[in-house]
Amino acid sequence: MDNGKNGFHPTTLIRDFDRGKTSLLADGRTLREWTLVAREKEIEVAPGVTFPAWTYNGRIPGPTLRATEGERLRITLVNHSAHAHTIHFHGLHAAQVDGTAGIGLSLVQPGGQTVYEFDAEPFGLHLYHCHVTPLAHHIAKGLYGVFLIDPKEARPEADELVMVMNGFDTNFDRANELYAVNTIPFVYMSDPVRVTVGELVRIYLVNVLEYDLVNSFHVHGNFFDWYPTGTSMSPAEHTDTVMLCQGQRGILEITFPREGRFMFHAHQSEFAELGWMGFFEAGCG
Amino acid sequence: MDNGKNGFHPTTLIRDFDRGKTSLLADGRTLREWTLVAREKEIEVAPGVTFPAWTYNGRIPGPTLRATEGERLRITLVNHSAHAHTIHFHGLHAAQVDGTAGIGLSLVQPGGQTVYEFDAEPFGLHLYHCHVTPLAHHIAKGLYGVFLIDPKEARPEADELVMVMNGFDTNFDRANELYAVNTIPFVYMSDPVRVTVGELVRIYLVNVLEYDLVNSFHVHGNFFDWYPTGTSMSPAEHTDTVMLCQGQRGILEITFPREGRFMFHAHQSEFAELGWMGFFEAGCG
Amino acid sequence: MDNGKNGFHPTTLIRDFDRGKTSLLADGRTLREWTLVAREKEIEVAPGVTFPAWTYNGRIPGPTLRATEGERLRITLVNHSAHAHTIHFHGLHAAQVDGTAGIGLSLVQPGGQTVYEFDAEPFGLHLYHCHVTPLAHHIAKGLYGVFLIDPKEARPEADELVMVMNGFDTNFDRANELYAVNTIPFVYMSDPVRVTVGELVRIYLVNVLEYDLVNSFHVHGNFFDWYPTGTSMSPAEHTDTVMLCQGQRGILEITFPREGRFMFHAHQSEFAELGWMGFFEAGCG
Ligand SMILES: [Cu+2]
Ligand SMILES: [Cu+2]
Ligand SMILES: [Cu+2]
Ligand SMILES: [Cu+2]
Ligand SMILES: [Cu+2]
Ligand SMILES: [Cu+2]
Ligand code: NA
Ligand code: NA
Ligand code: NA
Ligand code: NA
Ligand code: NA
Ligand code: NA
Ligand SMILES: [Zn+2]
Ligand SMILES: [Zn+2]
Ligand SMILES: [Zn+2]
Ligand SMILES: [Zn+2]
Ligand SMILES: [Zn+2]
Ligand SMILES: [Zn+2]
Ligand SMILES: [Zn+2]
Ligand SMILES: [Zn+2]
Ligand SMILES: [Zn+2]
Repeated sequence: MDNGKNGFHPTTLIRDFDRGKTSLLADGRTLREWTLVAREKEIEVAPGVTFPAWTYNGRIPGPTLRATEGERLRITLVNHSAHAHTIHFHGLHAAQVDGTAGIGLSLVQPGGQTVYEFDAEPFGLHLYHCHVTPLAHHIAKGLYGVFLIDPKEARPEADELVMVMNGFDTNFDRANELYAVNTIPFVYMSDPVRVTVGELVRIYLVNVLEYDLVNSFHVHGNFFDWYPTGTSMSPAEHTDTVMLCQGQRGILEITFPREGRFMFHAHQSEFAELGWMGFFEAGCG
Repeated sequence: MDNGKNGFHPTTLIRDFDRGKTSLLADGRTLREWTLVAREKEIEVAPGVTFPAWTYNGRIPGPTLRATEGERLRITLVNHSAHAHTIHFHGLHAAQVDGTAGIGLSLVQPGGQTVYEFDAEPFGLHLYHCHVTPLAHHIAKGLYGVFLIDPKEARPEADELVMVMNGFDTNFDRANELYAVNTIPFVYMSDPVRVTVGELVRIYLVNVLEYDLVNSFHVHGNFFDWYPTGTSMSPAEHTDTVMLCQGQRGILEITFPREGRFMFHAHQSEFAELGWMGFFEAGCG
Repeated sequence: MDNGKNGFHPTTLIRDFDRGKTSLLADGRTLREWTLVAREKEIEVAPGVTFPAWTYNGRIPGPTLRATEGERLRITLVNHSAHAHTIHFHGLHAAQVDGTAGIGLSLVQPGGQTVYEFDAEPFGLHLYHCHVTPLAHHIAKGLYGVFLIDPKEARPEADELVMVMNGFDTNFDRANELYAVNTIPFVYMSDPVRVTVGELVRIYLVNVLEYDLVNSFHVHGNFFDWYPTGTSMSPAEHTDTVMLCQGQRGILEITFPREGRFMFHAHQSEFAELGWMGFFEAGCG
């Protein structure tokens, strides 16, 4: 696995929040800006297995766009790929900037660009993805990422992680051969996610898996509070296993009381055995 | 697509609530009565594609039966079809009127009829369907509908919509070729669901999809409050995506803040691309 | 069906809670001990259909281990089978006793044994299963059971039932031919689960089904309160249908207001028709 050649590494990506470039608007609000470039890119998804991906900014998942509710957001999509694409955001916005083929700004043709601008609302954990038909194809190729809107009153300080549950159909039969969190199967088995005993860990969990109807997250030896869609400050459940369909997402809050290696994985054995498993390594800070 | 020949149109059906015929009982309670006729009917489910359906009252989904909690309900099933059928209601009732083959009133033979009578409880969003084996076949053929029990203290005034997520196995291989909400694939793409900016919209969402393990509802650019099973007046989640298995259902409350066309669809790309997508057209009232 | 030859019967197993052997620790806490023996066993899963199962204590599901939060638990696994196994518990514990191949105590080889010891926490409904690769195989062969931790302040008195949703891949093609609750298809159709009108019934429901992405529980003519994972004393939903993926579980509380036979089953018609259906027989106490 040459993560260097891929140009991104799950071990850094998991804590990489892209807050864009900020400036002040006349009305005193913050304007936050990002540029996303859609481009084709070969990704090595397993040793010796390359996948002809479509990416935002050369990585899968795309950058984790992070804002605070009430800010003005401006995202420029530059299309350096050979196919038309869009960015469709989950969240509140005008139809004009919905990023759906045939609506408002509609398709961004190869060589073209467009600007999506809207307010950051509601607070919570969202996602973005291309919305060009065939939908399954444009998503499964890799055009997706996390869109996180913090509440104005920030959540408590924590060690924050981004986990995007995805997979790859490497032989183009509309079924996945590889499953992962953050793209590279088993990557957190050989390079565990290091966390600190007694410290609050907050996981932003998004499911974008195409072709399979559901996905799930299970952690060993520990429990978490679960905030579906991240739109409430009160947890909905205290558990060790959650199930999500594509487009669903939520926040997990977990504090590891003990040192040691704790596995996390889909509780669909097939997904786990084809790559969607990893370790937390809880240590003393 | 000849919706006229089908005898029902998703654009009217979506706001069509059947409150039956009411009278007063000796104890002062309301008696609410409906007659459902089971019959075979060819339905054009896509241009040039007819499906040999089994229907209640000639439509798929069957009539949306709407009552208020505490009322006495009397539903007569008349079987004008060539196969034995029943009506099984989700909700509270005696075993005698459960509508399950082999229990109580049991099968209604071709040419026969029977009467299901019970109290309307609990308030919430329920469903009814035939419960004759093979179950998958009697459901997938079209014998299902919505059973809505309003709480005694009515929910706030709203523009109310019924959405039944279904599909059709047009080649009888126990897998669906077509997916929809309210039977006709893509119908709300060409004829969007018109809603008013700033007005509360309440969606009664029921999943009856056979053969696929789950289904889901996602709306673009807007969020909703979600009341699973509709049995509580407090929402369980604020989100833009919910997942349901067959028999699950819930109420969505959504207010569109802006004019424009907003897509809604299953977030299973396959289902969306095979028909389960539509538009809301939000306009100024 | 020779349940006697199988050595366990779903009709007794459904109310069989194994509280182990208790003693007092120096610090005044209770120590609770069990021994589980892993062994191969032919199980007759349908008339004339034997399944070469792997079992804990000769039964599927394994014993329902029941403790109270805060107790010290000690479980000895003795491996009388020809393959290496473990016991992985859902719940809080040190990595050393996680029961995952490659971690801590790791594999228990044929002829070997090991001891898992940890505190009973958190209160709620959990499960245990072998965690040796291939995972799907070790689970689907039958190595799973219920792990129930009562809260210190006991739940209200009730008639308590254990229901483990499972299935069998009798031809080893990684798909199930048979589905059930508590192993034997249709067993509660011919021998209904007897409950008392007006009495609280509490069902501990766990999904371990392998190969299918989800499972569900639906009851006819009655509603229940639903406590996901059993970690809260307040219900999350009042409904008649819940969906679970493998590893998910929850508590149902239901009071039957009327005498009679009420069906319960998966609302996936295929699962129901291949065995996952039964009856409650509600009678006057
Ligand atoms: Cu695209
Ligand atoms: Cu596990
Ligand atoms: Cu029927
Ligand atoms: Cu979408
Ligand atoms: Cu094993
Ligand atoms: Cu049913
Ligand atoms: Na594939
Ligand atoms: Na697969
Ligand atoms: Na088909
Ligand atoms: Na399909
Ligand atoms: Na099989
Ligand atoms: Na099957
Ligand atoms: Zn576990
Ligand atoms: Zn989406
Ligand atoms: Zn595991
Ligand atoms: Zn969307
Ligand atoms: Zn049903
Ligand atoms: Zn969409
Ligand atoms: Zn039912
Ligand atoms: Zn597990
Ligand atoms: Zn049923």
